[in-house]
Amino acid sequence: MDTTGKVIKCKAAVAWEAGKPLSIEEVKVAPPKAHEVRVKIHATGVCHTDAYTLSGSDPEGLFPVILGHEGAGTVESVGEGVTKFKPGMSKWTIYPHLGSVRFKFFRKKLYIYSAITHSEYTVVSEISLAKVDENAPLDKVCLLGCGISTGYGAAINTAKVEAGSTCAVFGLGAVGLAVIMGCKSAGATRIIGIDINPDKFETAKTFGATEFVNPKDHSKPIQEVLVELTDGGVDYSFECIGNVGIMRAALEACHKGWGTSVIIGVAGAGQEISTRPFQLVTGRTWKGTAFGGWKSVESVPKLVNDYMNKKLMVDEFVTHTLPFAQINEAFDLMHAGKSIRTVLQL
Amino acid sequence: MDTTGKVIKCKAAVAWEAGKPLSIEEVKVAPPKAHEVRVKIHATGVCHTDAYTLSGSDPEGLFPVILGHEGAGTVESVGEGVTKFKPGMSKWTIYPHLGSVRFKFFRKKLYIYSAITHSEYTVVSEISLAKVDENAPLDKVCLLGCGISTGYGAAINTAKVEAGSTCAVFGLGAVGLAVIMGCKSAGATRIIGIDINPDKFETAKTFGATEFVNPKDHSKPIQEVLVELTDGGVDYSFECIGNVGIMRAALEACHKGWGTSVIIGVAGAGQEISTRPFQLVTGRTWKGTAFGGWKSVESVPKLVNDYMNKKLMVDEFVTHTLPFAQINEAFDLMHAGKSIRTVLQL
Ligand SMILES: NC(=O)c1ccc[n+]([C@@H]2O[C@H](COP(=O)([O-])OP(=O)(O)OC[C@H]3O[C@@H](n4cnc5c(N)ncnc54)[C@H](O)[C@@H]3O)[C@@H](O)[C@H]2O)c1
Ligand SMILES: NC(=O)c1ccc[n+]([C@@H]2O[C@H](COP(=O)([O-])OP(=O)(O)OC[C@H]3O[C@@H](n4cnc5c(N)ncnc54)[C@H](O)[C@@H]3O)[C@@H](O)[C@H]2O)c1
Repeated sequence: MDTTGKVIKCKAAVAWEAGKPLSIEEVKVAPPKAHEVRVKIHATGVCHTDAYTLSGSDPEGLFPVILGHEGAGTVESVGEGVTKFKPGMSKWTIYPHLGSVRFKFFRKKLYIYSAITHSEYTVVSEISLAKVDENAPLDKVCLLGCGISTGYGAAINTAKVEAGSTCAVFGLGAVGLAVIMGCKSAGATRIIGIDINPDKFETAKTFGATEFVNPKDHSKPIQEVLVELTDGGVDYSFECIGNVGIMRAALEACHKGWGTSVIIGVAGAGQEISTRPFQLVTGRTWKGTAFGGWKSVESVPKLVNDYMNKKLMVDEFVTHTLPFAQINEAFDLMHAGKSIRTVLQL
Repeated sequence: MDTTGKVIKCKAAVAWEAGKPLSIEEVKVAPPKAHEVRVKIHATGVCHTDAYTLSGSDPEGLFPVILGHEGAGTVESVGEGVTKFKPGMSKWTIYPHLGSVRFKFFRKKLYIYSAITHSEYTVVSEISLAKVDENAPLDKVCLLGCGISTGYGAAINTAKVEAGSTCAVFGLGAVGLAVIMGCKSAGATRIIGIDINPDKFETAKTFGATEFVNPKDHSKPIQEVLVELTDGGVDYSFECIGNVGIMRAALEACHKGWGTSVIIGVAGAGQEISTRPFQLVTGRTWKGTAFGGWKSVESVPKLVNDYMNKKLMVDEFVTHTLPFAQINEAFDLMHAGKSIRTVLQL
């Protein structure tokens, strides 16, 4: 049956209230307007940022809402003026277009982000879509829409890690592991993974970590531990947690004169970072990254190609694959620190 | 009379207590030890950092002390193992060697910095001395040991200002004016000078400022004023005051995605900078600079050459020249905002 131009009824995971489990509901998805594309989602990730919005901590989060922003699927129909995508064209990944990710629009009494993926069908702006290799497995490359690309890019694009350098990565979730992969591919010789969960180290090693530090094993502030361990501080550090205290520690763990620290974690509403200006005056640099500094939707197909050519690990991030109906289990696994990423199949 | 190997009696400006005027006293200067050089000072500057130590706010400041760290003169005698410098060799400028500027040693019951210049004779480490062009006027190039090189280098080396960019410079003392000169020489097209003293603007224009903003003329926070004025924020900003609130404003006045802010001002003891991490995550960079990123004593002779070849303005910074005995007047002129730099002749 041709659905072009018609409203589609399908299932989506609705967050009715902050802090409550999602419920799978039947929703109506309107046809795409000009410069929009309606997409059938085949696979989607569950990311820390989704959990942040669901928790109610995000000051911009409004309920009820459909979440999800890492997704891959096929084009169902296109709105007026869309020439780059055709119905039936098979593979694409959502690129979280900067500036519009946080933009909400009101439709069917649900607040939804410009790119939502926890739904069988979704409508996105054509600038949020990237056509990817026809042979790419959607239940893997859906993750290249967010965390993995962010961490990898933070090392390669934002910090511009140099060969032979020493790096410290705070937080060994998907983002931190992707940072480690980026540091390794840039030729870093010492890659120190830091996490309060010691189970994370074995996995971190497979991505390239050479050492592990658990802040709980030390009575001193973690920045002092690292400065001693590295004879003055690291060349690059990365905060992949969202904790403002650790953001400061990550900066102060850098070597004076040249150390660079990159903030990737998203902190709670209203929280602030601070340090003594002397930390910067003595030659440290403090940066941050959104989507790892990949500047356009064009970067996603390139990352998919790198994955297909085995330059980039993606499969190793997927610890669990579940049917869409078990989406709450995916959030539970994440909160329990048991998964790196769970992919949901629709 | 040959003074080599002997104690020299000479005049120096001694700060007996925090917050009190200096008094010119007769002091004894010991002969240089191994790898040290004894120098006759011909000209010295009075810098904000000296005033900071004198005020008692510097937690590392101990009294009594002899201050001054911008100076130029001639070599009187050298210690064992010094081969680069010979007695009588005429012109040199003190380079505030990183890491040793704050190092104090005890001699003649006076705490003195490793390079003190408010004295007719001084002893410095040979690594703090730069041989400069024989034709260079010492009462000008003495300033290249600190503020001017710092501001100029902050723009050129630390921020790496690009042609066509928009810059905001907070604080139009010697350091801020030198930043403006650096931005101009890098080809910046809009250079916005910001100061609460409107008298500073005429001078700032001669160094290259294209616009002036007085925060007192606005009820909104200064970062908002600048973001509006520049349609989203500046490409580069510089804090040349030492005020942690302005350091934050300077960062937040930068354009998201690429803006870089450089801290040059030295804040009061224990004060901290802060901001929301979102400011960095959205692509701003926060840096600082010590001595403008010039990495070694070798850079001073090059800066002197640039001055001799009229690529660098120095004369324009010298608003007052006074005999050494009037050193307290030099501090008063600085506090009253009436001088850019006063040079003292010995
Ligand atoms: N800037 C961006 O564009 C961007 C994109 C994606 C995700 N993020 C953010 O990156 C962060 C990490 O995402 P993730 O999916 O990897 O999260 P995750 O929850 O999977 O991983 C976080 C890790 O940090 C560890 N941790 C928690 N507190 C710690 C502490 N005090 N010290 C050391 N380790 C600690 C946890 O044990 C866990 O292993 C989140 O804040 C997320 O919102 C940012
Ligand atoms: N990082 C380094 O290596 C280095 C080297 C030299 C000097 N410094 C520091 O740089 C700073 C500037 O030095 P300087 O000699 O040019 O000082 P200065 O006192 O001559 O100039 C400071 C200027 O800031 C203005 N100002 C004060 N408060 C202001 C406000 N709230 N808003 C806007 N303008 C304001 C003043 O009117 C003045 O014009 C000092 O903190 C000094 O210690 C740092």
